[in-house]
Amino acid sequence: MVKTEIITLLTDFGTADAYVACIKGVILSINPRAVIVDISHAVPRFNIRYGAYMLMQAARHFPADTVHVAVVDPGVGTRRLPIIIETRRYIFIGPDNGVLSLAATDDGVRSVYRIENKRYMLSQPAETFAGRDIFAPVAAYIAAGIPPSNMGSELGTYEEVSIPKPIVEEKHVKGEVLTVDSFGNLITNIRLSDLMPTIKHSRRITIKVKGVSTQLPFVPSYGYVDKGETLALMGSVGFLEVAVNQGNASKRFQAKAGDLLEIFI
Amino acid sequence: MVKTEIITLLTDFGTADAYVACIKGVILSINPRAVIVDISHAVPRFNIRYGAYMLMQAARHFPADTVHVAVVDPGVGTRRLPIIIETRRYIFIGPDNGVLSLAATDDGVRSVYRIENKRYMLSQPAETFAGRDIFAPVAAYIAAGIPPSNMGSELGTYEEVSIPKPIVEEKHVKGEVLTVDSFGNLITNIRLSDLMPTIKHSRRITIKVKGVSTQLPFVPSYGYVDKGETLALMGSVGFLEVAVNQGNASKRFQAKAGDLLEIFI
Amino acid sequence: MVKTEIITLLTDFGTADAYVACIKGVILSINPRAVIVDISHAVPRFNIRYGAYMLMQAARHFPADTVHVAVVDPGVGTRRLPIIIETRRYIFIGPDNGVLSLAATDDGVRSVYRIENKRYMLSQPAETFAGRDIFAPVAAYIAAGIPPSNMGSELGTYEEVSIPKPIVEEKHVKGEVLTVDSFGNLITNIRLSDLMPTIKHSRRITIKVKGVSTQLPFVPSYGYVDKGETLALMGSVGFLEVAVNQGNASKRFQAKAGDLLEIFI
Repeated sequence: MVKTEIITLLTDFGTADAYVACIKGVILSINPRAVIVDISHAVPRFNIRYGAYMLMQAARHFPADTVHVAVVDPGVGTRRLPIIIETRRYIFIGPDNGVLSLAATDDGVRSVYRIENKRYMLSQPAETFAGRDIFAPVAAYIAAGIPPSNMGSELGTYEEVSIPKPIVEEKHVKGEVLTVDSFGNLITNIRLSDLMPTIKHSRRITIKVKGVSTQLPFVPSYGYVDKGETLALMGSVGFLEVAVNQGNASKRFQAKAGDLLEIFI
Repeated sequence: MVKTEIITLLTDFGTADAYVACIKGVILSINPRAVIVDISHAVPRFNIRYGAYMLMQAARHFPADTVHVAVVDPGVGTRRLPIIIETRRYIFIGPDNGVLSLAATDDGVRSVYRIENKRYMLSQPAETFAGRDIFAPVAAYIAAGIPPSNMGSELGTYEEVSIPKPIVEEKHVKGEVLTVDSFGNLITNIRLSDLMPTIKHSRRITIKVKGVSTQLPFVPSYGYVDKGETLALMGSVGFLEVAVNQGNASKRFQAKAGDLLEIFI
Repeated sequence: MVKTEIITLLTDFGTADAYVACIKGVILSINPRAVIVDISHAVPRFNIRYGAYMLMQAARHFPADTVHVAVVDPGVGTRRLPIIIETRRYIFIGPDNGVLSLAATDDGVRSVYRIENKRYMLSQPAETFAGRDIFAPVAAYIAAGIPPSNMGSELGTYEEVSIPKPIVEEKHVKGEVLTVDSFGNLITNIRLSDLMPTIKHSRRITIKVKGVSTQLPFVPSYGYVDKGETLALMGSVGFLEVAVNQGNASKRFQAKAGDLLEIFI
């Protein structure tokens, strides 16, 4: 059996600079067997919550023992701690600012460690580039089999970002736009269970966003309505989405992350 | 001898979201030996023909037995079928909307299968994300050695997009702009054989596009003319290109995919 | 011990086209064990100096024996030579236009070869795509163990781009903006040794750029000042950077690569 040592990377570094490549070089220098997979480097700069959402979305699809590294780190070089969160199936590595928290909670947290053992960092780490000098080598060593507990002392807690819970009434759900994906789909914080048992496919519902109410059908996929028509569906992450078939719902509704979104069934 | 199990990915998902990473996670969970190569995720949204062209351009350079997955899929979750096309050297996987067709025809089609065996899909596939829930696992299993014929019943036909044939006269070729690459080069549907035996390097030809005629030299490469000068050359995919050395021919000629482009020799 | 055959790629091709994927296909067809790592494909088009800087920044972090391929090549198909530079730890492959020179010099040049042996190129190489038809196969063969000396005759010299040296006086350093990264940080040509022993962390310094003088603190990392405040720090490549915490220094100072930047200590 081949043991693959997978390390995923999620950052807000973009790919126009060579920063991500530096991280990959450091990983491969320590652990040449590592298989490095980019989750995304296009997290909006310094947007911890967005990064946390993307990590949760992607991490769960990877094999057990995958090491997930997330570097969205406005406080690099300051007092926020570099941490490791060991969960049921994965290892998460990054700054203790919440970026790891949604994915880690989703998988079931077991232990949290502070990274402090300089033996597993690059010598003379630059204070501006923890991704390269701390997180990359630690990930490479852990993927190679060094236990997370070797990296530092156990912590009792870690920073969390949370997904706000919608307010669910019998025929009315008050939620919000959690994020907008690059297709312009409005991904809400409303789960299917928040709408059940009332809602069935093909039913028309009313959404209210930015003060405007719109009737639209709840359907299984985008192509169930004509091109350019609005729709609601259960998205692939498990949240209700409002979309325009082959169009951009964020532009259509002038809506963005954080906006109130109500549903009348 | 190392058997490498290569899976390529071509989508219109972009890399700003985590959708591509979800696909990679699913593949590696099923087949940890898979070597995943991105062809591009920047196919213009829902542009099947552009995706088909890019897949043809890249697929042919990969080793035999490569599994090529292409997901440009405006009809996701509707009646279009998920298919597998087995060709002389490759396996192509994607929606039956033409996106696989240019590359498959280029390599020589052997068999076509409808994907219907739920054993090789994720359980409870989301209707909005066939890339993750159907195409990714099927690709992972096929790369691992499961025969395509296990995935479903054979189909007699598949959707095709076609490259329009130019009209070739003795000193005049009437073609069109097939695509514009990100350098702004106008890639036409005219092959070298359409211009032979008349044309030789260094010869000046006249092109007519958007009603404007321009004389320019037919040369072996961009640097044969001064910076900012126009030129024609035989591009790396085998089609005549009109370009500006270190400049943008699409802007210079105000031309885009589908525009008529005539050549007078 | 696993011998990993790493090949890195740096180009100005972007990822919207399939050109980079063609290169990867060619490499894997020749050498299926190759591990291909993207340094970046977002070098500004035809900007040799910028590519040379990025290659230097990233290359040094990769394991010994890594093969680094850089294709920023405005003169493709013309008289500039395809070359190989063998350094202390690495092999660099690309056009002889300076793009390899900063990284190669940084590592210590041993030998330079002209690529001329057609046996290691694709048959009938397209004159427009040396990346696919010459550099990719040569890299694949070299990563597989063919000595660089098999590829062609030794050259006595190679093209260089250079980083201009700052003028250092006792309390005044006259440098320039070497590059601006995608965060908007101004990366200068001033090294820590140019400022020592005068400068210490927390000290305020004055920078003058575009005729405007600004006082700012010299700190270890971005987060040492409030969000939106300016700062100077020693960047992760070893050059002085001027930055705005969670902001864009290039916009704030209206400064770009090549601009004069003076420091008064």
